[in-house]
Amino acid sequence: MIRKSPMGWNSWDCYGPSVDEKTVRANAEVMADKLKSCGWEYVVVDIQWYQPSASSHDYDPFADLVMDEYGRLLPAENRFPSAAGGKGFAPLAEYVHSLGLKFGIHIMRGIPRQAVHRNTPVLGSDRTARQVAKTNSICAWNTDMYGVDPKKEGARAYYESIFRLYAEWGIDFIKCDDICRELPHEEEELLLLSDCVKNCGREMVLSLSPGPALLEKAQLYKQCANMWRITDDFWDRWDLLYAMFERCEKWSVHTGEGNYPDADMLPVGAILQNADPENRTRFTRDEQETMMMLWSIFRSPLMIGGDLTKLDDFTEKLLTNRQILAMHEDARHAHQVWRREINGRETVLWTALSARGGQYAAVFNLSDEESAVEIPISDLEPAKAPENLLDLWSGESRPQVEVISAKLPAHGAAAFLMT
Amino acid sequence: MIRKSPMGWNSWDCYGPSVDEKTVRANAEVMADKLKSCGWEYVVVDIQWYQPSASSHDYDPFADLVMDEYGRLLPAENRFPSAAGGKGFAPLAEYVHSLGLKFGIHIMRGIPRQAVHRNTPVLGSDRTARQVAKTNSICAWNTDMYGVDPKKEGARAYYESIFRLYAEWGIDFIKCDDICRELPHEEEELLLLSDCVKNCGREMVLSLSPGPALLEKAQLYKQCANMWRITDDFWDRWDLLYAMFERCEKWSVHTGEGNYPDADMLPVGAILQNADPENRTRFTRDEQETMMMLWSIFRSPLMIGGDLTKLDDFTEKLLTNRQILAMHEDARHAHQVWRREINGRETVLWTALSARGGQYAAVFNLSDEESAVEIPISDLEPAKAPENLLDLWSGESRPQVEVISAKLPAHGAAAFLMT
Amino acid sequence: MIRKSPMGWNSWDCYGPSVDEKTVRANAEVMADKLKSCGWEYVVVDIQWYQPSASSHDYDPFADLVMDEYGRLLPAENRFPSAAGGKGFAPLAEYVHSLGLKFGIHIMRGIPRQAVHRNTPVLGSDRTARQVAKTNSICAWNTDMYGVDPKKEGARAYYESIFRLYAEWGIDFIKCDDICRELPHEEEELLLLSDCVKNCGREMVLSLSPGPALLEKAQLYKQCANMWRITDDFWDRWDLLYAMFERCEKWSVHTGEGNYPDADMLPVGAILQNADPENRTRFTRDEQETMMMLWSIFRSPLMIGGDLTKLDDFTEKLLTNRQILAMHEDARHAHQVWRREINGRETVLWTALSARGGQYAAVFNLSDEESAVEIPISDLEPAKAPENLLDLWSGESRPQVEVISAKLPAHGAAAFLMT
Amino acid sequence: MIRKSPMGWNSWDCYGPSVDEKTVRANAEVMADKLKSCGWEYVVVDIQWYQPSASSHDYDPFADLVMDEYGRLLPAENRFPSAAGGKGFAPLAEYVHSLGLKFGIHIMRGIPRQAVHRNTPVLGSDRTARQVAKTNSICAWNTDMYGVDPKKEGARAYYESIFRLYAEWGIDFIKCDDICRELPHEEEELLLLSDCVKNCGREMVLSLSPGPALLEKAQLYKQCANMWRITDDFWDRWDLLYAMFERCEKWSVHTGEGNYPDADMLPVGAILQNADPENRTRFTRDEQETMMMLWSIFRSPLMIGGDLTKLDDFTEKLLTNRQILAMHEDARHAHQVWRREINGRETVLWTALSARGGQYAAVFNLSDEESAVEIPISDLEPAKAPENLLDLWSGESRPQVEVISAKLPAHGAAAFLMT
Repeated sequence: MIRKSPMGWNSWDCYGPSVDEKTVRANAEVMADKLKSCGWEYVVVDIQWYQPSASSHDYDPFADLVMDEYGRLLPAENRFPSAAGGKGFAPLAEYVHSLGLKFGIHIMRGIPRQAVHRNTPVLGSDRTARQVAKTNSICAWNTDMYGVDPKKEGARAYYESIFRLYAEWGIDFIKCDDICRELPHEEEELLLLSDCVKNCGREMVLSLSPGPALLEKAQLYKQCANMWRITDDFWDRWDLLYAMFERCEKWSVHTGEGNYPDADMLPVGAILQNADPENRTRFTRDEQETMMMLWSIFRSPLMIGGDLTKLDDFTEKLLTNRQILAMHEDARHAHQVWRREINGRETVLWTALSARGGQYAAVFNLSDEESAVEIPISDLEPAKAPENLLDLWSGESRPQVEVISAKLPAHGAAAFLMT
Repeated sequence: MIRKSPMGWNSWDCYGPSVDEKTVRANAEVMADKLKSCGWEYVVVDIQWYQPSASSHDYDPFADLVMDEYGRLLPAENRFPSAAGGKGFAPLAEYVHSLGLKFGIHIMRGIPRQAVHRNTPVLGSDRTARQVAKTNSICAWNTDMYGVDPKKEGARAYYESIFRLYAEWGIDFIKCDDICRELPHEEEELLLLSDCVKNCGREMVLSLSPGPALLEKAQLYKQCANMWRITDDFWDRWDLLYAMFERCEKWSVHTGEGNYPDADMLPVGAILQNADPENRTRFTRDEQETMMMLWSIFRSPLMIGGDLTKLDDFTEKLLTNRQILAMHEDARHAHQVWRREINGRETVLWTALSARGGQYAAVFNLSDEESAVEIPISDLEPAKAPENLLDLWSGESRPQVEVISAKLPAHGAAAFLMT
Repeated sequence: MIRKSPMGWNSWDCYGPSVDEKTVRANAEVMADKLKSCGWEYVVVDIQWYQPSASSHDYDPFADLVMDEYGRLLPAENRFPSAAGGKGFAPLAEYVHSLGLKFGIHIMRGIPRQAVHRNTPVLGSDRTARQVAKTNSICAWNTDMYGVDPKKEGARAYYESIFRLYAEWGIDFIKCDDICRELPHEEEELLLLSDCVKNCGREMVLSLSPGPALLEKAQLYKQCANMWRITDDFWDRWDLLYAMFERCEKWSVHTGEGNYPDADMLPVGAILQNADPENRTRFTRDEQETMMMLWSIFRSPLMIGGDLTKLDDFTEKLLTNRQILAMHEDARHAHQVWRREINGRETVLWTALSARGGQYAAVFNLSDEESAVEIPISDLEPAKAPENLLDLWSGESRPQVEVISAKLPAHGAAAFLMT
Repeated sequence: MIRKSPMGWNSWDCYGPSVDEKTVRANAEVMADKLKSCGWEYVVVDIQWYQPSASSHDYDPFADLVMDEYGRLLPAENRFPSAAGGKGFAPLAEYVHSLGLKFGIHIMRGIPRQAVHRNTPVLGSDRTARQVAKTNSICAWNTDMYGVDPKKEGARAYYESIFRLYAEWGIDFIKCDDICRELPHEEEELLLLSDCVKNCGREMVLSLSPGPALLEKAQLYKQCANMWRITDDFWDRWDLLYAMFERCEKWSVHTGEGNYPDADMLPVGAILQNADPENRTRFTRDEQETMMMLWSIFRSPLMIGGDLTKLDDFTEKLLTNRQILAMHEDARHAHQVWRREINGRETVLWTALSARGGQYAAVFNLSDEESAVEIPISDLEPAKAPENLLDLWSGESRPQVEVISAKLPAHGAAAFLMT
């Protein structure tokens, strides 16, 4: 059982499909050194580690992929040298484990088109790739795979064959792509895939992409996966952060132990997709703090998108605020209390109980101007009048308050623990 | 501020539009005698108290109504004799207050068509009924009123004139009909009406009908009203009760102090709309308990629909279970945890924190067969492992449980307090 | 049987709800004098002839209306003096007939609200207005009437009572409003009303308003009425004329003897609803010719909207082009051939057979620039190669053409008869 | 220019994807012998002539296809022996031409997936199959092809390369599949493909499949193709024939020289997809005549689906009725006049002008019972009163009629020429 919402780093935001072993090791080392003590643990290699010529944020259509004789994709050795000799990701996973961290990989739903066209055998079955492929199921944005048809004999054997391989490698986290929003069409394939992950012999987080997930399928996601993307790719733009408030509101009741609706990676620090010559996030500092508070009270997984080898002071501080990260771990029954205009500023109030006692409140200023808010404690319906109000960012306490007062910068926020 | 979700009795389910003063007094007396000590307090006269010839559950189209020279409706004296001499509902309200209870009335949005066609003056204004009526706004199911056009001069004066009159009478509760689901068309009229209630000089609960309310307008309801119907008229049919689980799930995050999404009246005991010769509810006892547990953990207002003068033992017991009613008062941050099949039985789990400490859990068997469920405490994510589990119906306690076990009859439920 | 698409004049575009008898007579006299010989024949009094205080293009909400003891509306005598003594429109109809023309009136679907609130008896029935009114059926833009509920006893008697009265008056044309687009809700009322018109003892054109009519109800309109509006109110704006091409395309297959989809009145000459100090139409001359050609090949009814007492030379010439009006009378099986870009100009081609032999073609330039078009005769699929091509506007003929060449001004058109 | 609506035979209904050369020759011979004199001329080989192992009505997913070094598909020599030596369909086309007939083939939109995965060069370009394929465009029901991305350099060269090859073979008719209903997504590919057909150096009919075509794209189809399917696959079931009346009604205005909306093949005689041991169509004889009359007055292409080598007497007579086929050739400006209940029988009336003079009428009984209809000639709005009425099936004439009388069997029809 995955008892807390995962925290880690993912290679996509800074390296796209072209990350390599050296980079993964370097980032893992920074995580172990500077972040691990605050709870950060997963190191995840994103898409196309099996594509030798990957070189940027674009995909090379119909590229030749590295795979074994059973149509199972393998790390490209020119990019991941330790995979040589058929070792796959086992050596890299072992290194990450040696740092006290966990190791994850990205996969695409389905079976390589290349395997289907070469008609490779399916391991543990008398069927071939052509016989298990779903003929009209492809990804809209990537040419690597065909879907697998769960009704075909051999389909389960194929999925078993890959997850057993990943278990042998020592994988702790699977980010499965081209599946989360492909419902109801690919529902049966998700159920099969999820079942094979659960029975592969090693505990792995199962993370579903891309979003937005379908709210009416919430129960299915809860049954199949540990986290699922509630949004399309999230980047360092205020309109996307603004829109996340409504997404989190809708999904908040579906968070529970082992189930964490996912607001996507944190585009902080040095990331690729921006115009800044130094590749720094376009989010203001206030916006980054707002993001951390929303993700944390909502208990979204926290996956860092920035390059850890270029970690700056502000970002490090942002990612190691122990009070905020405690809220991420301890928040329970979180929900939006209201969203309303206060003096012309659109304001959002969230609350959650703390598993360690007390109640959290987070207030967000979504307007483009500074705002001074006064929120009666009664809006939060605390079990009893709080004796102390702790400001999570400043660390300051106020006794016996009846009103939460806060000065919020544009796009800024504040979070409190009432005890 | 209305600090708890209202509890009371409403005349509709047993008397339709034809309730009379004698009946209201008799029901109020039973409430004072048998229910008041458990928190029941509102006595509400439903629709068409101003219609002298009302006689059944049907409306008499275009009937002549009793009104004063300003187009304000007055109780029909043949049905409410104490209203004689222009006293309106003041004497009846006074009597209800003398029993330690509160008194409410039903109104229709708008101004009487009769006033418009007679072109009566609007009190406190130089305008007439024709000048404030909204020309194309009528109720789909009742011919009494035209809407009032908030853009017209005199519109506010009209609404002020009626709520001041109700304040003079001593009204504590307004159930305003033909408005809740009429958004966005009648949004401005709702805002005006709500503002006039707030400023009429007497605290009144404002309840909006009919449902289903529009989820996307949740913030507006919260701003304007204390309770709003999340469903069309609810009667003693399992399909309607079954459907309420989804409604409550969606609306749960919009409950808060002073704001109570309303699952409608409780069709218990002796009610009119059924085939039983004794007019007893068609709900089984298990279904009635299920209803009480769902309404209570969700904090829906509890308005009894049955005739209190015919209160039977089972119904009295149902309405006076102190543990359930404590959950109704104390539940906070309630939400559905999951809805899933367990051994083929559709099962729903809710939880809420208690304002007095501890955490509630309620589990519902929506299937047509008996069910034995085992729910790990961890599904509820309690702050700490509970030392005691109190069964709210049986009053029995179990120490240090890790799993909630319950045998649930078809359509039955169980509720617990973990401390 | 109404064997040709009606042609006439309607008071709305220049007088709104406030036309009076003197004006109607004056317009009828001009029609008789200058237009009758070209086929113009109907003189129609539009809405609210029963409202004494009508004075402009706005309605006076809830105004007191003139009606008889059976709730039947009568002409306001202050506006129509010849109606004095209970004569209704009989004297005015007689005068119009004496000019060799026909006389029509506008009515609203339903029964006066005033009759319902006064509860007048229904002639020829033991029922009252309250008993036949449809309780929740009102017009969205006028407060005069309630719908009549065809399921109620007395409903047919009411409609019979009004159409018999109109037959006694000598009415030849009924423009029934608030009904054409009110389907399927008011379908039964339309059927009842239509049946009462057919059986009232006098042949009357039945015209339905307002549009847009519902295409999926085409068969119903054909069964019930002679003409029905395929558009909301049409005024002198190019965007509305542009949009009519698509409407006509869709409705063309529903034209047939006695059934004429109606593109609405012709806002030509002096009309009210414009900014011009002389009240002249804002359409250019080319646009007016385009309108006449489209309406004619499509066989829309032609109802003049302009004030005939202010008829200018251009407008008179426009309305008396005998070749165009022959197309209006003789076109059969008309349909759009194509709509395409020619040299960047959006161009539309229509064709129709002529009941007198030969085939019509009309080509329209919908662009804002002049256009020279060359259309192969084969696009029109004539039965045989035409020997003569007659330009309907210029009257010029061209022999043995294989291509129709035309220079079309912006928003302009040309029409031809191939024989 | 294709001056008349195509008539011919297609291999699909009786042979699915597995037709062979011997069969095609045999069917062509019967056509030349028995049908050619009535206007039948196209012999069309349907899908997967390039798939060596095709054997039934199902597709073999991801099968190996025969193609040349430029990724262009070639006839499988085991099925089409004359294609040996790289001759393609040239010898077979030559044989069909020698019979005085024309030859057509089916193609799928796009480029073979096999070519993309093998990355074959595109003839006449420096690009490869991978570089012109549209990465996320596949057929929903067949695995042979990827779409071609018209924005990619080399895309036009690819389409030119295949149509030039077909021109060299002597192809007269292209049935392009997976394109007709794939709008707007594949609109640009359709435009490119159509342009390459027009410029390939040989006149070819371009037929688009599968349906239903999108009515709002009518102008695009007219611009690009000669015929396009207005329905999904049509088989010998009454519900499908019944539904065609509405389809034809909607599409009738889009018929014109060179443009023929296509109601699909005629499942007559011996066809595969039925339960009959002798493979005879399930349509009754009356239904088959109804189908022929509707297709003909509407001018749908007529493509025989049945096996001509098993042509029975009834079917031969059905396909050689010269009066009906004259209507197919001569009908102009066809449209449905009305669709209404007559004595409880749903009845449809169509009319069209004849290019040889006179006017057609066809009346259809869609009910399950015999029907006697009387239709006033005036419903058809003939140019002048007809002197003669010719019954197209019986060949009988009636003089000077004012009413068309017909006895129609269940699902039966009658057609007439008025002169």
